[in-house]
Amino acid sequence: MASLSDFVRPAILSMDGYVPGEQPKDRRYVKLNTNENPYPPSPRVLEAVRACAGEDLRLYPDPMADALRDRAAAVYGFRRENILAGNGSDDLLAMIIRACVGPGDRVVFPTPTYSLYDTLIGIGGGTAVEVPFGPDFALPAGLAAAGGRVTFVCHPNSPSATAVPIGEIEELARRLNGLLVVDEAYVDFAGESALPLVHRHDNLVVLRTFSKSFSLAGLRIGLAFAAPPLIGELAKVKDSYNLTRVGIAAATAALEDCAWMQENVRRIRATRDRLVPALRALGFVVPGSEANFVLARRPGQKQRATYEQLKERGILVRYFDTPQLADALRITVGTDAEVDALLKALGQIAGG
Amino acid sequence: MASLSDFVRPAILSMDGYVPGEQPKDRRYVKLNTNENPYPPSPRVLEAVRACAGEDLRLYPDPMADALRDRAAAVYGFRRENILAGNGSDDLLAMIIRACVGPGDRVVFPTPTYSLYDTLIGIGGGTAVEVPFGPDFALPAGLAAAGGRVTFVCHPNSPSATAVPIGEIEELARRLNGLLVVDEAYVDFAGESALPLVHRHDNLVVLRTFSKSFSLAGLRIGLAFAAPPLIGELAKVKDSYNLTRVGIAAATAALEDCAWMQENVRRIRATRDRLVPALRALGFVVPGSEANFVLARRPGQKQRATYEQLKERGILVRYFDTPQLADALRITVGTDAEVDALLKALGQIAGG
Repeated sequence: MASLSDFVRPAILSMDGYVPGEQPKDRRYVKLNTNENPYPPSPRVLEAVRACAGEDLRLYPDPMADALRDRAAAVYGFRRENILAGNGSDDLLAMIIRACVGPGDRVVFPTPTYSLYDTLIGIGGGTAVEVPFGPDFALPAGLAAAGGRVTFVCHPNSPSATAVPIGEIEELARRLNGLLVVDEAYVDFAGESALPLVHRHDNLVVLRTFSKSFSLAGLRIGLAFAAPPLIGELAKVKDSYNLTRVGIAAATAALEDCAWMQENVRRIRATRDRLVPALRALGFVVPGSEANFVLARRPGQKQRATYEQLKERGILVRYFDTPQLADALRITVGTDAEVDALLKALGQIAGG
Repeated sequence: MASLSDFVRPAILSMDGYVPGEQPKDRRYVKLNTNENPYPPSPRVLEAVRACAGEDLRLYPDPMADALRDRAAAVYGFRRENILAGNGSDDLLAMIIRACVGPGDRVVFPTPTYSLYDTLIGIGGGTAVEVPFGPDFALPAGLAAAGGRVTFVCHPNSPSATAVPIGEIEELARRLNGLLVVDEAYVDFAGESALPLVHRHDNLVVLRTFSKSFSLAGLRIGLAFAAPPLIGELAKVKDSYNLTRVGIAAATAALEDCAWMQENVRRIRATRDRLVPALRALGFVVPGSEANFVLARRPGQKQRATYEQLKERGILVRYFDTPQLADALRITVGTDAEVDALLKALGQIAGG
């Protein structure tokens, strides 16, 4: 009888899958580990979800999610043809790799960053070229020269929570001979977006998600913005019906109530403004955050024990057991009460 | 500035994307083109969807959809580790290709069949090996000898609506040196399933979907059943959060009310028992159907005009403009009233 190695590719057999942050099922935790929004989605979104609970669920969704694309086009100042909807921005990242990266193709990204890039490159058979961030997470000078067929910039970057000047992103798009992907999952919490650059650069894709600022991680919706010819190529490699009817309706409704999202962003930024100095006062080195999370570092001191002690106290944060990040914790900006609980626990651990 | 051909793979630039059946937005049509269920999902499913319309949408779904897998394990007689949930079975098909098929790998399937296989193989860089079905859509004898790293059997097959004896599928699994994928999207409308074979063959994956018999095309849920080591490899190449919270909840609820699905299946089969002889009386050659659709053929006579005249009359059926299928229409079994409208229109066209 045929066995696993007769049909599973060697590259897959030898790889580790991407490990997402813990999603505990008991809900006992103060959950500050996967950068979810602590506030609920807009009441209009909930109404749109309820309105989907009917007979039409028997019908396929619109393959191209035109209602959502049209709404996004109006909100962000593009045409429908500039936009592709994904089952979360992870789906869009996977489409980009499928469309552009074959065996041996170089894919460049500054590190440390979102580890899914490396996983997807491995699946596609590409060669990951890691270029370390400069001091204070500045965009590395060698990025363009690294010769990526595709270059990823996570902006603001995870796990550092840092942003870079938009002018540097534009200069990178101009200099690259390949595609530049700017992953703006967290940009609503930052100052400036690379989105307007899409009007000027045909080798640029900007990704957005509804999982963070719009409080819709549970419904899996992302958007890609790019020149229409590139959108057309990406559409060829997407699952025909990649979004649910509920996801399309919810995201469309969310874009009809951006004020709700912006108010939640305002609250999270206010909490962030308390959290960062409080962590510094506890002895952590914390880069200024442009996201809904912070990277708290004790240089040279492994933080696994802190992560575990927080978990014992019912507080989940993200710990990455890699050489670059072992001395750091990534902490989501929750509600004020959640952040107070975190700071209190950290104070006890530090003083214990 | 970089241009499209600097970063999009040549294989993608030169391919056509998969073209799903029309999804008209005005809803004026009697829609018999994409094999949706004409009856709504269970009231328990609708209740589960409504219950999702709350704050928890801000949280990521369970990456492995354990609640759904546990329920499916109980219903179908497996363990959780035998099951992987997909964003529709299309997502699972894509995972299988990603995990198993690299440049030049042979992927075998009898034709005509679901054209997405060919599209996915093209994206993965594999070589599609088409083996024509035998007379009356019998499983071709040369399938095992074709040497596929992966072999697809759509069971019942689309667009022919025909099934093959389970013993032949088991014999194929036994003889193959590669992976056998049995795509059972339509099996609830048929007599027998290959699912029990998963207990005996480690090189077999059986796929199911909630889009057809469970009336949930709009929510994108599929299941793969296989030996645990293979499920583990497929999980490595899935999007981390590939299902929505709503999809997981709805599918779990659907499996708690299988009687509702079975009653809809019974009604559709009864309508099918009227539709097939009526089409034959109109001069079509129609293989016995084991699905919720039929293939109606006028051998040697192109059916594009019939398709178009039906569309003018407000009835959508599926027409495939390929050499093998140009003389056929694929018609979904709708409600009795929808099927009556179809038959009346066909009578008018034939007599016109």
